[in-house]
Amino acid sequence: MGMRFSDLLTRISQVGVATPRHLGPDPELLLGQSLELAGPGQLAFLEAGHAMASALAASNAAAVLLPLEADLQRQATERGLAWVALADPRLGFAEALGALNPRPRPPAGVHPSAVIDPSTRLGAGVHVGPRVVIGAGCLIGHGSTLHPGCVLYEDVHLGEDCEVHANAVLHPGTRLGRRCVIHSAAVIGSEGFGFVPTPSGWRKMPQTGRVVLEDAVEVGCGSMVDRPAVGETRLGEGSKIDNLVHVGHGVHLGRGCALAAQVGIAGGAVLGNGVILAGQVGVANRARIGDRAIASSKSGIHGEVAAGEVVSGYPAIPNRLWLRCSAAFSRLPEMARTLRLLQARLGTDLGGPD
Amino acid sequence: MGMRFSDLLTRISQVGVATPRHLGPDPELLLGQSLELAGPGQLAFLEAGHAMASALAASNAAAVLLPLEADLQRQATERGLAWVALADPRLGFAEALGALNPRPRPPAGVHPSAVIDPSTRLGAGVHVGPRVVIGAGCLIGHGSTLHPGCVLYEDVHLGEDCEVHANAVLHPGTRLGRRCVIHSAAVIGSEGFGFVPTPSGWRKMPQTGRVVLEDAVEVGCGSMVDRPAVGETRLGEGSKIDNLVHVGHGVHLGRGCALAAQVGIAGGAVLGNGVILAGQVGVANRARIGDRAIASSKSGIHGEVAAGEVVSGYPAIPNRLWLRCSAAFSRLPEMARTLRLLQARLGTDLGGPD
Amino acid sequence: MGMRFSDLLTRISQVGVATPRHLGPDPELLLGQSLELAGPGQLAFLEAGHAMASALAASNAAAVLLPLEADLQRQATERGLAWVALADPRLGFAEALGALNPRPRPPAGVHPSAVIDPSTRLGAGVHVGPRVVIGAGCLIGHGSTLHPGCVLYEDVHLGEDCEVHANAVLHPGTRLGRRCVIHSAAVIGSEGFGFVPTPSGWRKMPQTGRVVLEDAVEVGCGSMVDRPAVGETRLGEGSKIDNLVHVGHGVHLGRGCALAAQVGIAGGAVLGNGVILAGQVGVANRARIGDRAIASSKSGIHGEVAAGEVVSGYPAIPNRLWLRCSAAFSRLPEMARTLRLLQARLGTDLGGPD
Repeated sequence: MGMRFSDLLTRISQVGVATPRHLGPDPELLLGQSLELAGPGQLAFLEAGHAMASALAASNAAAVLLPLEADLQRQATERGLAWVALADPRLGFAEALGALNPRPRPPAGVHPSAVIDPSTRLGAGVHVGPRVVIGAGCLIGHGSTLHPGCVLYEDVHLGEDCEVHANAVLHPGTRLGRRCVIHSAAVIGSEGFGFVPTPSGWRKMPQTGRVVLEDAVEVGCGSMVDRPAVGETRLGEGSKIDNLVHVGHGVHLGRGCALAAQVGIAGGAVLGNGVILAGQVGVANRARIGDRAIASSKSGIHGEVAAGEVVSGYPAIPNRLWLRCSAAFSRLPEMARTLRLLQARLGTDLGGPD
Repeated sequence: MGMRFSDLLTRISQVGVATPRHLGPDPELLLGQSLELAGPGQLAFLEAGHAMASALAASNAAAVLLPLEADLQRQATERGLAWVALADPRLGFAEALGALNPRPRPPAGVHPSAVIDPSTRLGAGVHVGPRVVIGAGCLIGHGSTLHPGCVLYEDVHLGEDCEVHANAVLHPGTRLGRRCVIHSAAVIGSEGFGFVPTPSGWRKMPQTGRVVLEDAVEVGCGSMVDRPAVGETRLGEGSKIDNLVHVGHGVHLGRGCALAAQVGIAGGAVLGNGVILAGQVGVANRARIGDRAIASSKSGIHGEVAAGEVVSGYPAIPNRLWLRCSAAFSRLPEMARTLRLLQARLGTDLGGPD
Repeated sequence: MGMRFSDLLTRISQVGVATPRHLGPDPELLLGQSLELAGPGQLAFLEAGHAMASALAASNAAAVLLPLEADLQRQATERGLAWVALADPRLGFAEALGALNPRPRPPAGVHPSAVIDPSTRLGAGVHVGPRVVIGAGCLIGHGSTLHPGCVLYEDVHLGEDCEVHANAVLHPGTRLGRRCVIHSAAVIGSEGFGFVPTPSGWRKMPQTGRVVLEDAVEVGCGSMVDRPAVGETRLGEGSKIDNLVHVGHGVHLGRGCALAAQVGIAGGAVLGNGVILAGQVGVANRARIGDRAIASSKSGIHGEVAAGEVVSGYPAIPNRLWLRCSAAFSRLPEMARTLRLLQARLGTDLGGPD
């Protein structure tokens, strides 16, 4: 199952391997590993920036993908490592891992324990695993894979080459584009949390809309994307969502966004393209976040964030300001003391804190 | 499947439609939509407060539910929209969506792929979907619906007209009142996180209690309600819980509470009636929160919150104070600078921050 | 099913019951309960520290486990309660609950609705419940229990006496030691959130590593432990994880850690032994936390935390400092006012906040 380094380089040519290289004995590679832990038969990589550069001198990797830095290349040659230099070694490593670890597509066919409504239509090459349940009127695109135990309610449409992992659930009316991935225990299209207060308690607002995932959207394990009362909840093409994320009813997410684990987005928020939210960020109802904005972990966003802005804290403020405010926060007891002393020196008491 | 506006108004009469109205051509309505996006055959609504009032002048909705404001009514008539004025247009819209989108109850019966212990008793009209598993000694109330893949361990009791969504799990001893809804991938009655430190590691405290949900409680997707070591975890009548919420062992929640997504309530906390916790709020062990208290998003509550109080921040403080403190936080670097300058002017160094 | 108090004490002898005791009428005990709610046939306990000491004088428990404090023992005798004094009454209560509520191991055998790949090997005494799916090449250790609806992908190894609860999912390559418990809807070994930015969007980094749980690790409901691109995600022996926790790809957790609900640990973080993280704590990529460090709820950790340190806040700082800073935070508006008044008194405006 191994592969010569030279053959691997041919396989990953789309990331540009015409750059300097040193095949040495052209080792047989079996798998990838981190630079510190890699041994014989293993491929590692090193990014520009040198944080791990010292690990290179001690590495026992068989081969390494390097950035375009001559001294690192010399160092690798001296260590006796095969190497190639790439503009983006991390991207090359992704390609290489894919080549070294091909994931065979599960064979087409329907497991006899699956329960599929006769009105549902399956495309060519679809794999339906054990105990899958598919309701009425669904369309499953060519080449899609449904892993064991996932449940599709009625009227769910999947584009080509989608993958739905074990025990995930897709609710009525959900639409997935092509090449979407829904990870285990994720739930797409469930009822939004809409209740109207009345004198006799909370009255549910019927959630009659749907969830639409455009092409190549990925939703992590245990993440929840709710459908709205009316209209759509929409996740734009190529957006990626980590585990345990909540996306409320009616949220619109642009293309190419990345939401880290445990992010929560309340109903009606609108995010542009390329937005990045770090872990545990919260976005309030109807907030608006511009293209390519970034929120650092745990920040809480109300109102509006401009395109390209980097925000932090709760309520979120510009990251640079927040860094200075946070530093000052940890000196608050001293500041309070200084204030007291200044007042004492002036022989006055202005009612400040004590 | 559509419905004349005049017929719809008859159907939603319980929210008070004797108020001014303008049927115009009495349009046929098919579904609801937001005021900006609504077109022919679609119903929208507008709440008092006018945030969307400008959308009314441009709306292409067929009909609209309005608040009791004469100028909006005149505007709608001029635009040629059918309308009715209601004291609570949002509530009326909820009623209307329900009338326009009737959800037929799944037919009574047990799917042949379900696995049900013979000691379990099913009420009349119960629907058990594919791949449901029900353990020994369960009681399923009349008219309840169990969607595909949900699992009931032994000794679980459901009241009448409950709905358990796909792949949800109810653990031993769980009790649900009438009209409860458990959404997909939620887990009710699992073991609380109780461990006693010992020299040889954590020793599990057996969790021998149970979870009780009173009537009309709703638990969101992927939310977890744990059972306690002894006694009960109890969620009061009509309380509504959004997605990915954690309710620890022994928590007592009053009636009519609303917990937004990703709230976490640690073991033993006691919440009164009508408490509202916004997204990502945390409540510490044994905290006590009074009736109708509100916590804004991301706040963290220790100790006690009085009835009716509105709190924010971590640790949570009164919301009005927190708003002023947060505003001051973003000016901390300036405050530190002013302190330094004041000291310099007084020709002294009091040891404050630098 | 009850048990005499004297017999119970024999059963829990491993926690040291040779200390003073008062059997009184040697009551028959049926179950445990809290000190305030306990009645006839019920056992309660009271820890050192007296927070509940007043409840003892009013308790109707049949018997109580007390700390080594003579006045409490006298009080219990006067109240007519049977009691025993223990160095650790909470630990004794855990033992007693276990004795009073024996959990019979499910009978060995495979439910006919389970789907098991023929290449998988089951140890002696294994229980496989309804609708379980087990992929190719798995090894299930002796005495393990797989509850209904759980899914094991291919090449999953479980040690002896593991328990996997309903609808949990174990992904390819996952390794569990002995006596591990995976709670409902948890997902172990799913793909880490690794994407490389490219001009044409996010490119997935293949996740070719695995998740390893050492002996006696417990993972709560709906918690997610991801596998890394290369190498391992590893949870050390005896570590306990509560509900809805995210453990990112490549995280290493030491032995005997405890992670409370909704904690999130980003990829590559390294935690030592005995680390305790309270609810909703976040740990950033590649952070390092030393042995026995503690983080209070909602704190956010970047960089490094020394062994034994107690930290709070975001960014996390030493807990003692944070307590003082938080107290000062709520006085910020007053501090700002004092600063303004000081400037006015000095007849100057230094550009501070207004």
